[in-house]
Amino acid sequence: MGKSERSLPDGWTTAPAEALLVANAAPVAEYDPSSTPGYSGDKNAGTAALAKRGEYLADLQEMLFANGRAGDNRSVLLVIQGMDTAGKGGIVRHVGGLVDPQGLAIKGFGKPTPEELSHDFLWRIHRALPSAGKIGIFDRSHYEDVLPVRVHHLVPESVWSKRYDLINQFERELVDAGTTVVKVALVVSPDEQKQRLTDRLADPTKFWKYNPGDVDERGFWDEYLQAYQAIFDLTNTDYAPWHIIGADRKWFSRLAVCELLIDALERLDLDWPDADFDLERERARVAAL
Amino acid sequence: MGKSERSLPDGWTTAPAEALLVANAAPVAEYDPSSTPGYSGDKNAGTAALAKRGEYLADLQEMLFANGRAGDNRSVLLVIQGMDTAGKGGIVRHVGGLVDPQGLAIKGFGKPTPEELSHDFLWRIHRALPSAGKIGIFDRSHYEDVLPVRVHHLVPESVWSKRYDLINQFERELVDAGTTVVKVALVVSPDEQKQRLTDRLADPTKFWKYNPGDVDERGFWDEYLQAYQAIFDLTNTDYAPWHIIGADRKWFSRLAVCELLIDALERLDLDWPDADFDLERERARVAAL
Repeated sequence: MGKSERSLPDGWTTAPAEALLVANAAPVAEYDPSSTPGYSGDKNAGTAALAKRGEYLADLQEMLFANGRAGDNRSVLLVIQGMDTAGKGGIVRHVGGLVDPQGLAIKGFGKPTPEELSHDFLWRIHRALPSAGKIGIFDRSHYEDVLPVRVHHLVPESVWSKRYDLINQFERELVDAGTTVVKVALVVSPDEQKQRLTDRLADPTKFWKYNPGDVDERGFWDEYLQAYQAIFDLTNTDYAPWHIIGADRKWFSRLAVCELLIDALERLDLDWPDADFDLERERARVAAL
Repeated sequence: MGKSERSLPDGWTTAPAEALLVANAAPVAEYDPSSTPGYSGDKNAGTAALAKRGEYLADLQEMLFANGRAGDNRSVLLVIQGMDTAGKGGIVRHVGGLVDPQGLAIKGFGKPTPEELSHDFLWRIHRALPSAGKIGIFDRSHYEDVLPVRVHHLVPESVWSKRYDLINQFERELVDAGTTVVKVALVVSPDEQKQRLTDRLADPTKFWKYNPGDVDERGFWDEYLQAYQAIFDLTNTDYAPWHIIGADRKWFSRLAVCELLIDALERLDLDWPDADFDLERERARVAAL
């Protein structure tokens, strides 16, 4: 079904994949992390919508998986970036958790290991790409190599500055090979981040989520905004566009990512694969059991 | 909390991890695949119980994950075996789907690749083991190497017959290294299998799940029962006991596996990890943001 023929999901006044494009948004330093562009519903409506749309997402995911089994080499890759406490893990859990976990290829990219550092920055990325029929979810990604790496001068500018083009080339190859790349940047406000850090320190069941380094990183807020603006300016391609999603309202960021995945899967124009066997013959064999 | 102190889950008259032990069951050839040993509820009650207990399972899984982050090396490995159409994939989807997918390491073992065949049969198994804090789910496993491999004489008896001891040694090492091994064999009746194959051939959304080879395998039913009985007789250890679960009622097999995972996680006697930082100092730092 073509994009133009599709109706808007309930509560949306603009198609999510349009409304959330970074190309249609303010510069990140001016972006309102509590905004819900394109969506007119409130928290209750958005929470209910996530559950309902999640069932549809699960159906589409199963169809993608079925086609992968039948020889279709296509896949989807969701790239999630965002500052600490923006809710990246919550997206993986609450959006990824809507579909069959067998169809997911989830990878979190932390501080590189010595082995990873001994290779090109895309080495560990390649190894984690989704296979045919799968939805890959990257919690952080190759963009780390132009975000904290740039902010903290972990490599010389002569090195990181070349990575934007390398990333564009890499994503071009990915898309050409059949992977739909969905890139989302979660933007949290300083106030909300402070609240989330405070909450983690107030609840013994959340201590394990608290990382003192998050407070250190907070001191580089403006540098991170500049680094994010750079990826939006330099890696926002037509084949792999960036979406920006306000993260202050978790219910919205989850619904938004769910809708972006639905959009990506709908654009694959999937159908259930044909039988790759002689249907009548097999029906007769089974009837004779 | 010790096992003896725990109360029975609602609807169970015997603890699931006891009621489903292969040691307490009839030989597999006489096992009733529609039975629900230890459970007194019906389909409605069982379906509701799965949803409710799934939330508890998700909490326990998160605690295991948190401890893994904090340096606890323990993990859980669910090994699922069962004849075609027994619902192995459904278990992964509907029980695995109850928890945060970030905490799962799911691996399906199909026909070995040339690379896998060029190694020892446990090579591909080792590579897929769950890391600290994760729940591994094997859809088929190292037991394939004494099930179809034995039934179809893919290697000489002198080779497969030694594998039972090798498997016991392997699982002993796993357990000693901190992995709780939960082994379940799903048993489906010939009538129910025929019905499920018929259903797949009647529904174009299920064609992709139909494999003509399943009908061929059906011709080896008795040989498979013998091969299953052999793994029960030879690899049912105190450190990694087998459970047998009737698969004719999908709602029951899913609830049963959920309860076995809960039991395994409860026996780890988990608590939320302590803060690995100076709590008061961090609270002051965050308050000053």
